[in-house]
Amino acid sequence: MADKAQIQDAIKTQGEVVRKLKTEKASKEQIDEEVAKLLKLKAQIGGDEGKHQFTLKTAKGTRDYNPKQMAIRERVFNTIIRCFKRHGAETIDTPVFELKETLTGKYGEDSKLIYDLKDQGGELLSLRYDLTVPFARYLAMNKITNIKRYHIAKVYRRDNPAMTRGRYREFYQCDFDIAGQYDPMIPDAECLKIVHEILSELELGDFRIKVNDRRILDGMFAVCGVPDDKFRTICSTVDKLDKMSWEDVKSEMVNEKGLSEEAADQIGQYVSMQGGMDLAERLLQDAKMSQSKQACAGLTDMKQLFSYLQLFQVTDKVVFDLSLARGLDYYTGVIYEAILTQNCPAEEGVSVGSVAGGGRYDGLVGMFDPKGRKVPCVGVSIGIERVFSIMEQKAEASARKVRTTETQVMVASAQKNLLNERLRLTAELWNAGIKTEVMYKKNPKLLSQLQHCEDSGIPLVAILGEQELKDGVVKLRTVHSREEVDVSRAELAEEIKKRTSDV
Amino acid sequence: MADKAQIQDAIKTQGEVVRKLKTEKASKEQIDEEVAKLLKLKAQIGGDEGKHQFTLKTAKGTRDYNPKQMAIRERVFNTIIRCFKRHGAETIDTPVFELKETLTGKYGEDSKLIYDLKDQGGELLSLRYDLTVPFARYLAMNKITNIKRYHIAKVYRRDNPAMTRGRYREFYQCDFDIAGQYDPMIPDAECLKIVHEILSELELGDFRIKVNDRRILDGMFAVCGVPDDKFRTICSTVDKLDKMSWEDVKSEMVNEKGLSEEAADQIGQYVSMQGGMDLAERLLQDAKMSQSKQACAGLTDMKQLFSYLQLFQVTDKVVFDLSLARGLDYYTGVIYEAILTQNCPAEEGVSVGSVAGGGRYDGLVGMFDPKGRKVPCVGVSIGIERVFSIMEQKAEASARKVRTTETQVMVASAQKNLLNERLRLTAELWNAGIKTEVMYKKNPKLLSQLQHCEDSGIPLVAILGEQELKDGVVKLRTVHSREEVDVSRAELAEEIKKRTSDV
Repeated sequence: MADKAQIQDAIKTQGEVVRKLKTEKASKEQIDEEVAKLLKLKAQIGGDEGKHQFTLKTAKGTRDYNPKQMAIRERVFNTIIRCFKRHGAETIDTPVFELKETLTGKYGEDSKLIYDLKDQGGELLSLRYDLTVPFARYLAMNKITNIKRYHIAKVYRRDNPAMTRGRYREFYQCDFDIAGQYDPMIPDAECLKIVHEILSELELGDFRIKVNDRRILDGMFAVCGVPDDKFRTICSTVDKLDKMSWEDVKSEMVNEKGLSEEAADQIGQYVSMQGGMDLAERLLQDAKMSQSKQACAGLTDMKQLFSYLQLFQVTDKVVFDLSLARGLDYYTGVIYEAILTQNCPAEEGVSVGSVAGGGRYDGLVGMFDPKGRKVPCVGVSIGIERVFSIMEQKAEASARKVRTTETQVMVASAQKNLLNERLRLTAELWNAGIKTEVMYKKNPKLLSQLQHCEDSGIPLVAILGEQELKDGVVKLRTVHSREEVDVSRAELAEEIKKRTSDV
Repeated sequence: MADKAQIQDAIKTQGEVVRKLKTEKASKEQIDEEVAKLLKLKAQIGGDEGKHQFTLKTAKGTRDYNPKQMAIRERVFNTIIRCFKRHGAETIDTPVFELKETLTGKYGEDSKLIYDLKDQGGELLSLRYDLTVPFARYLAMNKITNIKRYHIAKVYRRDNPAMTRGRYREFYQCDFDIAGQYDPMIPDAECLKIVHEILSELELGDFRIKVNDRRILDGMFAVCGVPDDKFRTICSTVDKLDKMSWEDVKSEMVNEKGLSEEAADQIGQYVSMQGGMDLAERLLQDAKMSQSKQACAGLTDMKQLFSYLQLFQVTDKVVFDLSLARGLDYYTGVIYEAILTQNCPAEEGVSVGSVAGGGRYDGLVGMFDPKGRKVPCVGVSIGIERVFSIMEQKAEASARKVRTTETQVMVASAQKNLLNERLRLTAELWNAGIKTEVMYKKNPKLLSQLQHCEDSGIPLVAILGEQELKDGVVKLRTVHSREEVDVSRAELAEEIKKRTSDV
C-alpha cells in the first residue's frame, strides 16, 4: 500500500508539472515528454485510475451484517417470531418510505432526525422513523378496527451514532401490537406476558419489567401541584431517573423547569415507590392521590392488570414503579419497560438498559382517520439491536463456534478424476433434501476438503473412491471423531438424516 | 361523509367571507361575528381540523403487505431459503442506502431511476438499486475472495409503476451468488440446478431455462460483421426477441442502429438456433463461428456446462438459446433466464415472462477494489415479485383459505364469569408451547368464539365450564366436525399437539 500511495503522490506532482507547462505554453515536445511520464506512472497503478477512487465504506451509522451476525440474528428472530405466533399474531409489512406528511407532527422535536428523500419530482417522501406510525396509518387507511399483528423491519434515524454507543442510523424494530376495543387490561397483560416469555427464552440473564400508567403520572403531577402546562416537561425529567440521581432530577425540575421545591419534594416521595398490586391498593387510599380521578382510574386498572399477571404467572418479574415515565407523547394509559438486571460481561458496571418497552396509545390511529375514529391500541417493541449485541458478545466469549451454514455433509474424494462422481452423488443428496456441499475443483486435496468441514462445522463427509464406487458404497466419516463407516449408497441419505437430526 | 363534506364546504365559504371582510378592512365587530361562525363550523368536525387532512396512502409505486399476502410471502421465502441452505449458502445483509458514488456508473442509463436521499448535511446517499452492486462492494471492502451467499431484501427504482404492470418502485430481490476462483462451470451449473429446484418446488407450472454466453454473443456479432462499437446496442436489440418478431428486430438493427442488412441476416440465422450440448458441438465446427476465439471459448464452456447439468439431471428444462442476450453490462460469461411456459389463468394469452435470471460477472468486484483485484462471480436472482403475484392469484382462485395465523386452539367458554379460568388455561397452553388464542372479553358469546375459529381457521376449541372445572377436564372440540371429547387437563397440551401435528 505504501508503494501505491507513493505512486499516487508522484502522479499528483507530475500532473502539476504537465498543467504548469500547458499554462506556460511550453513546446509540444516538452509537454508530450512529461505527459508520457504521467501515463507511465498511471499505468503502474492499473490504468484507469478513476474507477479506483471509490470510498469503500457503508454510509455513516450503518453496517453490513456478515454471515456470523446473520446466523445470530436469525436465531433471535426465530425465538421472537415463535412467541408472537404462539400468541396468534399475524404479520404485515409497510414500505420503507412514507409520504413525508404521514410522519409530520408525530415525533415532537425528534422530527429533525427523519431522513427525507430528495425531491426528484412527484411526492415528498421520508424514511420511516418507527413502525408504530406506519401501523396506525395502515389501520386508518384500511379501516381495520381490530388486529393482533407483529412487524419486524428496519427503521431510520439521523441520530449521531458516535455519541450514543451501540446506536445505529439504520436498525431493526420488532413490534407486537393489539388494536381493538376490548375489556380493560386483558391485551395489556398479554403484552407483558410476551415480554416475559421472550426475555426468558433468549436467556439474557435476569430481568425486571417496570410498569406505570400515564394517568397515574398525570394525576400525581396534578395533586403535587405541577401546573397543567408543565406536565410533559416534568414527565421527561422524571424519565431521567434511571440515569440520574434524585438530587439531579430535582435540581433540573426546580432550577431549569421552574417547579416549586415543595412540588418537587412531593413528586420525589411518590417516584421512589415500587411494588405490586398492594402498592396500587395503598395509593387508592392515599389522601392526596385519591383526589385525582385520573390517578384513580389508572390505579384501578393497575390492580386489574396485576390480577391478570398473576394468572399468567409473571408477577415475579413485574414491578409497579412510579418513576417510569417513557418519552413518547402518544401513550395514553399503561406504559412499561423491561431492563436486564445483570450486567453484561463485556460492559462491566454499565447497565445494558431497556431491552423492551411499550404501552397503550389510544389516540394515534384517530389522528389518521378522516372522521377521527379512534382505535385503541397497546403494544410492545423489543429492543432487538441490544439483544443482538448481547448475543454477539456471548458468542464471542463462548468457545462454541457459530455456524453460518446448516450443511450436513460434504461430498469428497481422496482420488483424482472423480469430479463427475462427486457431482452425481451431490445431486442425489440435494434431491433427497440433504444439505450438501461439494468443492468446485476438479481434483481437490482430501485435506483441504476436510479442512473446510472443520472450518465451517460440517459434521459429516461422504468420501468416494474407486473401491467404494465398485462396491456401491460411500465412506461416511464423522468429522469430530474421525470414525469412518461404509454405508450403502441406497441408505446414505437416511443415514445422514439420522446422524444429523440433533443438529 | 356527506355531512362532513358539507361542513367542510361551509368552512371554506365562511373562510372566504372572513378573508374578504379583512381585506376590505371591515369593522372589528363584523369580522369577529363571522370568525365566530367559522370557529363554530370548525368545532363541528372535531376542532383541530389540520390533523384530519392527511393523504391516507402509501407512496406511489409502493404497497403494504396485508397478513394474507405476508402468509404467502413467508411460504415462498421458506421454500427458496430452504433450497439456498441445502446448497450450503450463508446469508448477509447490507444497508438499504449506500454512498451515492458506490452506485454511480454501474447501471448505465438506468441510473436515472436511482432514489437519492435529500442532502441533510454529511454524505450523499442513494437507496440500493439491486443487491449485486452492494454485494460486490461488500466483497471488496472486506477483502473476501470466496463466499457462497444469498441475500433477500428490498430494492428501489423510480420506474413508472403505472406503465409496467405488476412493477413496483419498492420490491424484493432474492439473490444467490458464488464468488471465487474455481474450475470452470461448476458453480455456474449449481446456479442452474438451484433455479430448477426452486421453480419445481414452487409448483408454478412448466418452465424452461434459456442459457447463452456473452462470449458466444460477442463472437457471433464479430463473425457476422457487426462493428465493435455496435456490439452492446445490437445486443440490446437481440434482447427484445422474446417480445418482438424477428422482422421487427431486424428492422430496428438495420433502420435504427445502422447495421448492414447482410450482417443482420447472418445474425438472424444464428439467433434462431436452440439446442443442447449438440448445438454447442455443431457451432464449434461452424465455419464462421469457429473463427472467433471468444465464441470458441464460450462454446467449449457451454459443452462443459451441459455435461455437469446432465449429472445434475436438469437438462430436461435447460436449452442453449442463441437469442438470449440480457440487458446488464456487467455480465462476462454464461447468462441464463428462466421463463414459465404455461400461461397464468388470470393472464390468459400473456406470457408471465422471466421468473429468474443471472449469469457470470467476473469484473464487478474489481471495480471496487483499490488494486483492481478481480473476484470471479456467478449468480442468480429469483423474480420473487412475479412469483408472489402468481401465488396470490392461485390462492385467490383456489377454494382453500389462506391462514394468516398458526393458532392451534382457542380457549373458550359458554358460561359467564370464567375469564380468569380462561386466562389461566391459556397461559398453561402458552407455557406448553401451544399456539393459543383467547378472546379479550369478560363474557364473550360461545357463538362469537366459534365464529372466530371458523374465520381464521383455528382447528380446535378448548371449552371450559363449571362442570369441566370440577371434573379437571376440558371439552376439546374439533371445529370442522363439531365433535367434542373430554380431555383431562394434564393431557390437554399433548392431545392438541397430536391433533395438529399435520397442520
